[in-house]
Formats: sequence, structure tokens, C-alpha cells
Amino acid sequence: MFDKKYSYLGAHLQGSEIRRLFATSMRPNVISLAGGLPHADSFPNDEMAGAVSGLLTREKEIYLQYGGSRGNRDGFEAARCRMQKRGIDVPAEEIIITSGSQQVIDLMTKVFVDEGDTILMEDPTFVGALGVFRNYKARLEGIPMQEDGIDLDALEGRLGAGIKVKFMYLIPNFQNPTGLTTSIEKRMRILDLARQYDFLILEDDPYGELWFTGGPDDVRPIKAWDTEGRVVYTSSFSKIISPGIRIAWAAAPSGVIDRFDMARQMMDVCSNPLMQGVANELCSSGFLDAHIERLRGVYARQAETMLAALEKHMPDGVTWTKPDGGFYVWLTLPEGTDTLDMLKNALDADVAYVIGSAFSPDSGSRNALRLSFCHESESAIAEGIQRLAAVVRKRLISSE
Amino acid sequence: MFDKKYSYLGAHLQGSEIRRLFATSMRPNVISLAGGLPHADSFPNDEMAGAVSGLLTREKEIYLQYGGSRGNRDGFEAARCRMQKRGIDVPAEEIIITSGSQQVIDLMTKVFVDEGDTILMEDPTFVGALGVFRNYKARLEGIPMQEDGIDLDALEGRLGAGIKVKFMYLIPNFQNPTGLTTSIEKRMRILDLARQYDFLILEDDPYGELWFTGGPDDVRPIKAWDTEGRVVYTSSFSKIISPGIRIAWAAAPSGVIDRFDMARQMMDVCSNPLMQGVANELCSSGFLDAHIERLRGVYARQAETMLAALEKHMPDGVTWTKPDGGFYVWLTLPEGTDTLDMLKNALDADVAYVIGSAFSPDSGSRNALRLSFCHESESAIAEGIQRLAAVVRKRLISSE
Repeated sequence: MFDKKYSYLGAHLQGSEIRRLFATSMRPNVISLAGGLPHADSFPNDEMAGAVSGLLTREKEIYLQYGGSRGNRDGFEAARCRMQKRGIDVPAEEIIITSGSQQVIDLMTKVFVDEGDTILMEDPTFVGALGVFRNYKARLEGIPMQEDGIDLDALEGRLGAGIKVKFMYLIPNFQNPTGLTTSIEKRMRILDLARQYDFLILEDDPYGELWFTGGPDDVRPIKAWDTEGRVVYTSSFSKIISPGIRIAWAAAPSGVIDRFDMARQMMDVCSNPLMQGVANELCSSGFLDAHIERLRGVYARQAETMLAALEKHMPDGVTWTKPDGGFYVWLTLPEGTDTLDMLKNALDADVAYVIGSAFSPDSGSRNALRLSFCHESESAIAEGIQRLAAVVRKRLISSE
Repeated sequence: MFDKKYSYLGAHLQGSEIRRLFATSMRPNVISLAGGLPHADSFPNDEMAGAVSGLLTREKEIYLQYGGSRGNRDGFEAARCRMQKRGIDVPAEEIIITSGSQQVIDLMTKVFVDEGDTILMEDPTFVGALGVFRNYKARLEGIPMQEDGIDLDALEGRLGAGIKVKFMYLIPNFQNPTGLTTSIEKRMRILDLARQYDFLILEDDPYGELWFTGGPDDVRPIKAWDTEGRVVYTSSFSKIISPGIRIAWAAAPSGVIDRFDMARQMMDVCSNPLMQGVANELCSSGFLDAHIERLRGVYARQAETMLAALEKHMPDGVTWTKPDGGFYVWLTLPEGTDTLDMLKNALDADVAYVIGSAFSPDSGSRNALRLSFCHESESAIAEGIQRLAAVVRKRLISSE
């Protein structure tokens, strides 16, 4: 009855490839190196329950009522607290609290992009952003990734050829899916090019505080140098408190925030005020700083375990990135290997990954895959890589 | 810098009229008969804090992790629990848990409506739905409201004239903004017409359990008679637990739910699993049934207070609806009175309402306004109506 009634978008919707994988990768026995689900042992459940209880006793009118559609004071304070540690100091008027950074990507595209408009992005990039851009029928231009961020020559070539760009979507720190970090020099140069060619930047920074070595100066957001309000910055509590909290934010000039606000009123009205309160409690008590320091250690060890296992088990001809933070390693198999085709064998061997082409604006990266070291224990990661390496070895032999 | 960059939608966004009013109506001293904010005294803060604490101790992996994009088992159970009490029995596959019913309205329009498609609705209707429909550039056709629901002769006239309709948006119970309830006979007839003229129905039922007299048979949702899956039903915990919880749902055929799911993955990924757990705890413990029974008493008394004050203070020529449940009374002033123009006087007199035209698909109802009895105490409601009546009286005299 419904099939003839769908809108163009409704008829052409494609679910997230990653979400589809969840069903399989959640099977018992499967070691999931697929989804970007944070390590659950680290979730601060006691601190959250304590914060909820305190807030609900003191101020139920605020915490259970409708919140402001742009956010509540708690949310603004919590977002400012995280940003200030990264060199970004913006007033509350330049912040909107959202239900995940996914919502910021949706808002940015809704408010700036008409059908056929061009968005630039790293290739590969976050699958959830690609899905949004495609839903709005944007023209997607991927710029190839190098070890230290996008290929600037390629970018300048495109811009010099006269393409008109609405915005560039970037994940400068511990990028999803490659784990790579854009050098400070490249960040400055990208901002210069944005000025020169008059485009905006959507800077997505969910993992920015989860460095393994170094410190905040190595992962300073582009937004920190943005004097003209050209950068829309987004980050989230999903990876530093818990994804279930559904609290993220964007920082942008107040005129843009006003547009986001009007659009979001028609989408989901407001974000949960109680969860904004919890985020602020955990920030202002100092708990979150210590917690993030612990998370850095946990994820650094898990990454190390994965890298050591890859080194030990993967056959020649396979290469991978070495992240300085975040959740992901990007594995590249010899040209011609199809990781989509290989996925069935991997799942048969009880190990899951995400296929590379899911992250590519033009469905390239067919011989690549994303591994995440965030979710499983160290021993499961080691075992998972061993299983995967066996699958890869078999595949490479059979294709010889 | 941004002004020339906005998309068509971004440049034409209009915020909610009601949200704009909030700033003013939140001023101290102002008695707000404007927003549909539930009475905060009734928020079950202790029960919620208890539920949170229990859930986080037992199962932090589930409640703090990413949830399913269609919802978690707790959410499905909670939604089924509420619907079963209303005569709707659907399996979990036919449910999606959303961040407010506003998101269902957005999803429905996104998945079914292309630019220029026709949506039918009660006139007046919920302002948040009008905003969504306008953002998607739908063609809006309002059907005038009568005491017992829309004017069926007008509806049949339009349908008989051959207009092609994607869906009809209805709030059959204690409608926002009129407080009116569609008779059971009219519900059956509307469903018949939907079959005959092949359109869908989006049935929005946030207040359905908040009756003052009678019982579930008087407010049985259209969905309860829907044997072919033509009705997309939505309801929410906003008005029976708290708006801050941001948990609502839609029930529809599984094919439609799949489309909603794919679209929502790109909007906000998932709803908070912990809040779904809280909703389910309060339902399954039996607390919520008793709580709703108390709310019925609270809102019935507040409505009674408002109606008595209107009777006592309003001058001749002013009429209003007499709701059997919900949050709202719809007040109509003599033809030619402009309630937008009068609002300034009302705010000067420290009382707030929402102008009638905000609820009209064609900006009609200029001589009407919405009063809500949900938020203020009984004494404030009585005082607020007295203030408003003085403003109205002055306005009617000056226009003579």
C-alpha cells in the first residue's frame, strides 16, 4: 500500500552500512572490530546515577521540563568546559546543544545545502556524514587522505579549477575511519584556502581528547584559529562519557546557531535537560578530566594490542595506519582484494569489520577496511586480529 | 559571511511562534497560559531517580551504550504497554522509539512528502506540525474544526473534487489547540474516507490518556480500527512522565518503520536507552497507571478553574471550547479582533497566550487564541483569566 506513496527521499533511503552490520556483529562469539562503540567497562554509571539523583532532588522543574531548543545553561557550560581545554573560547550564544553530533551534520546540511551543491570531504570519511550528504542530494567531492591529512595539492587543484563549495567536512583528529591526524600546518593551510575560496568548514571532533601521546597542542581544532566565524565546530560526550547520553554540541557564529535552532525545533524540539545537567556535573566536579585521562590509557593499550597483533599475524602486502588516538585503524589489502566479498568469510570466522567502500564518497576503497579497537577487551582484540589475518591469508592465496 | 550561503530552506526557516513567546512568557510575574508545559509539581522525580539508579547498577552496558536506531526492548515494551490500554496491540517490529513525537512528524513528512504534495489537517492544528509541513514545502489544506471533529462535508467536498492527498494529520483527542475531541463516528468515517480515497493518516495522540471524565472507549484511537496498516500512530511520554525524557514512539506497518529507521539513523542515530528503560520501569511497576490517574485529577481541576474564571470574567461575544481532557481551551473573540495585536496589551498586563493564527495552515483564526491550563497553579489560572478578561474588555470597547 505504501510503496507508491513514498517521497523521492523515502523511496531512495539507504540505511547505514554500519548499522546493518550490527545485527551480525552482535551475534555471540563474534569479535566485533566493526562498530565504534566505546568500551563499556569504562562507562561512569555510579557517577551518572549520583548526578541524576542530585539534580532531580534539587531542580525537577528544570531537569524534567522541556528544555531550550538551543540547549540549557548546563549544556552550554559543559560544552564550554570541554572546548576551553582545547583552545576554543566561545560564549553560550554561539553554542547549540544537540542529540549527538549526527544532528549537527544534519543541521549543517539542511541549513546550507541545496540539491547539487558541492561538499568537500576527506576520502575516506565518516559513513554517517556521507549518508546525510547523499540524502540532501549534495554533490560529494572526496579529497584523498595522506598520513598527515588530506592531499593539499589535490584540494588546490579542485578549488583552482573553479568548483563552488558550500563547505568542507573534516575530522582532523584520529579520523574516522583512518585514525589519521591532520598536521597543524595542514590545518592552517586549509583555513587559509577556506578564506581564499570562500567556503565554510564543518569540523567534527568526537575523539579529540582521546590522544595516546602528546597533548592538546597536537590536536588543536581549526576552530581555535578561526577569527571570522568560518568554522562550525562539533564535538560530543558520546566518547568521553557515554553514547547513550545523546548530548553533543556545535559552536558557530550566533546567526548560524539561530538557523540551527529554528531547524531543530521542527526536528526534535530540544535535548534532554537532565542529561545536559549530568554532563555539566561530571565536568564541573573535575571527575571527567580524570576519567578521560583513564580512557586515554585504556584505548592506548587496546590500540597497542591491535597494532602488535597486526604486526604479528598479517601477511606481506597488507598495510595499516598507526593512530595516535581515537578508536580506529585503517587496513589496506593488495589492490584487487574486495573486502565486501571477504566479509562473509570473516563473519564465518567470527570476526567483524566495516568494509572500506562504506566510507568512500565514490564507493572506492574496496580493498580497505576499518578496524576499531574501542569496544573489545585486549585479549579479544588480539584473538580477533588473529582470526582476521587467517581470513586475509586465505583470500590472498586464493587470488594468486 | 553566511547570508549568501544558506540553502533555500536555511534562508526561509521560521522558528516556532510558541518558542519565541517563551522568552517573554518566562518573565517573572507573567502568568503563562501560553506554552503546553506540563505542571511541574507532578513530575515523578523520585521514581525516575530510583529507576535510573537501579538500571545503571544492573546493566550499564545496555543503558549507556548506543541504542538501536529503531529503539531498545524497554522502549518497545513501554510503548506497547501504553497502546494496549487504548486498544492498540502491535508487535515490536511495528514500533520506532523517537526523541519526541515531533520527530515522528518530521519522519512522516520526510519519508512521504515531496515538494507540492498535499497534506490535510484540522484547522487549527498543532503549530509544530505546520512548521514541519512548511519546511518540506508541502501544500497544506486545512479542514475546519467543529465541536465533534473536522467538518466531514468540507472534507468530502475536497476529496470529491479530486485532490490527491499524501496523508491527513489528526489529533483526535483533546486537540491542540482547540481541546476538542473527534467523535467515534467521525473517526470511523475518516478511516473509511482514507480507504476510499487512498490516503494515509498520521494520528497524533499525546494527550489521549489525560481524560477528565469517561474512559478509554471515548478516546479510542483510529489506529485501533486500522486493519490494513493505513494509520501511523504516535504518542509520547512527555505529558504523562515528563517532556525532558524525550521518549515518544510511532506505530506503523513494519515497512514504514524500516523507512523511518533509515531516515532517523542520519538524524540523531538513536534515542537515549536509559530514558527508554526509565519509561519501561515506570510502566511495568504499575506506578505510571496510578500517576496518570492523579494527573487526570490535577488537570481536570485546573481546567475547571479556567472554565469557571472564563464564565465569570469574559464579556459577551467571547466564546470558548470546553475540553474533556488534555491541556487547552480555544477562545474566540468577535470577528475583527486581532489577537496578535492584543498580545502586547496582554503581556503588559502580565498574562500570556498563543495567538490563533499560529495554529492555522492559512494564517486564519486571527480573532482566536489558545489558553493552556496545564502549567500554572489553580490560583494563577484564575488570576490570569481575570487579567486577560480585562484586556479583552478594553479591546472590545475601544473597537466599538
